[in-house]
Amino acid sequence: MMSPKPNILIYSPDQADSYAECIRGYGFSSVKAASTVEEAEKYLPGTEVILAWKFPTQLLHKPIASSVRWFQSMGAGVDDLASDTHIPENIILTRIVDQFGGYISEYVFTYLLYLVKDVPRMSKAQLERRWDPFISETLAGKTIGIAGLGSIGAEIVRKARSFDMNVYGLSFSGKQAELVDRHFASDEWKVFVKEIDYLVLTLPLTKATHHVVNRDVLLAMKPESAIINVGRGALINEKELLAVMRSGHLQGAVLDVFETEPLPKGHPFWEMPHVYVTSHLSGPSTRDGVSRFFVDNLNRYLNKQPLQGLVDRKRGY
Amino acid sequence: MMSPKPNILIYSPDQADSYAECIRGYGFSSVKAASTVEEAEKYLPGTEVILAWKFPTQLLHKPIASSVRWFQSMGAGVDDLASDTHIPENIILTRIVDQFGGYISEYVFTYLLYLVKDVPRMSKAQLERRWDPFISETLAGKTIGIAGLGSIGAEIVRKARSFDMNVYGLSFSGKQAELVDRHFASDEWKVFVKEIDYLVLTLPLTKATHHVVNRDVLLAMKPESAIINVGRGALINEKELLAVMRSGHLQGAVLDVFETEPLPKGHPFWEMPHVYVTSHLSGPSTRDGVSRFFVDNLNRYLNKQPLQGLVDRKRGY
Repeated sequence: MMSPKPNILIYSPDQADSYAECIRGYGFSSVKAASTVEEAEKYLPGTEVILAWKFPTQLLHKPIASSVRWFQSMGAGVDDLASDTHIPENIILTRIVDQFGGYISEYVFTYLLYLVKDVPRMSKAQLERRWDPFISETLAGKTIGIAGLGSIGAEIVRKARSFDMNVYGLSFSGKQAELVDRHFASDEWKVFVKEIDYLVLTLPLTKATHHVVNRDVLLAMKPESAIINVGRGALINEKELLAVMRSGHLQGAVLDVFETEPLPKGHPFWEMPHVYVTSHLSGPSTRDGVSRFFVDNLNRYLNKQPLQGLVDRKRGY
Repeated sequence: MMSPKPNILIYSPDQADSYAECIRGYGFSSVKAASTVEEAEKYLPGTEVILAWKFPTQLLHKPIASSVRWFQSMGAGVDDLASDTHIPENIILTRIVDQFGGYISEYVFTYLLYLVKDVPRMSKAQLERRWDPFISETLAGKTIGIAGLGSIGAEIVRKARSFDMNVYGLSFSGKQAELVDRHFASDEWKVFVKEIDYLVLTLPLTKATHHVVNRDVLLAMKPESAIINVGRGALINEKELLAVMRSGHLQGAVLDVFETEPLPKGHPFWEMPHVYVTSHLSGPSTRDGVSRFFVDNLNRYLNKQPLQGLVDRKRGY
């Protein structure tokens, strides 16, 4: 049923036209852009391939979507899509992989250095025109613990080496265990976090990782350690993190992802000391990056080669 | 004239006792500590080795200092000592080397990432409880230009590689030219800075480097580039930097060193937009680090091996 020139539907609430233009630039002509449910309904008949962000998936089990064969998400996290019963089993589901390592690792080291060099103290001294030489700590010699050793975790490992850090890792598959100084399995969280100075979460959200960082794990961490979450909000039990930090445990929490996004205005994280809130921006899907990835996958699709970022719905990513 | 157990004088306005205790811990017993001119005068007779910070060098050409053979500075920069005519030619002068690369490079990357990821924007959004996802730029693909390729510059090169940056370098000796993608000689400043996004100064201060970053060099830089100075204040003509930045040229200046330190309360740098002032803290002489270096040199001295960090007074470092 594969056609040499498949009909492609791009869906995005605010960037559909821009993506469509970019994909056409790669030489694909049958490209439609939709930004609303109505537009999607209009273009779905005859569509074989979808590239989408926040797609109205309820449309996919209607007869108008019967020709859809492959659904490429514009994001890396597909916890919502993998468990979405609206998407028929025969539609191939793929996510973006290997695109975010560099970007997210820059975010992680921005905040690791911000914390360890005590930038707030330097900024305050400048504001007060006060000469304040002090000796900060260093990343060198400290231990980073990376939960999740996929392409993002691997890139964090690489940069951590250049800062002469000790590197621990925890992963479910154990596939990249040789990257780190010490590897821990998914039932070893409390041993894993015991000696580390920074816990970085890059795991996908699945049934097995939901609220995996709970009160017990947080209390097993050193009181002066810090946590950085660039995975998914619900990896952490946020209520328990709040309680643990209110008790004075942990030196910092850098949170780019939350159980509810956007983070509600009234949420205590916004004003909590030592909590750094950012707006799910550590690993943005840039149009050019996603388009390159999609076109590469499209060529694989046309040549009947295995697709990159294939989602195993049972596993959840 | 070398004795198996030379008399050692430690001088520091505020840390002499602490250093002396540390050196004695390495098994050297003839160690005296002085914090004032009077104490230095009292202990100088018979002293063979001096480890010092802010030493009253006028004492060194008096007869009480006639047994002094070797003067180890606690710092890396010795522009003041190298040109100090109070220090007799027969006294060996050494400085700390190879201790600051890791520390200073962490400072440099703290601010490179702070600028490129736009931490001020993220902080402001949090302060205003505002969800503000945005796509920052990345260090990856940007070009860093490092002036000075000694041990500090080399460590910055190493970390820049892990961030997938292009690395240009300028050095006077050209000895480590192979470290960088493009190397420039000391008469090529304007070509060197033309294409770079970040200029990092790690040069020693000598007659040849005084005000080497002047109006012409600054204007040859891209308007959206930034400068980081972790060398010595007078590498930059500060007045010309001020004028150039007031005209809207350069995206940022991160300054840890100044022509006058502490930076005077009334100096315009304190409140200038895009200028980040820190208090000469990027490469602190930690007691433990300096002591280790000194004891290692002391053993070389006793074994008549070449000393580390030997200062060539004509060259100026």
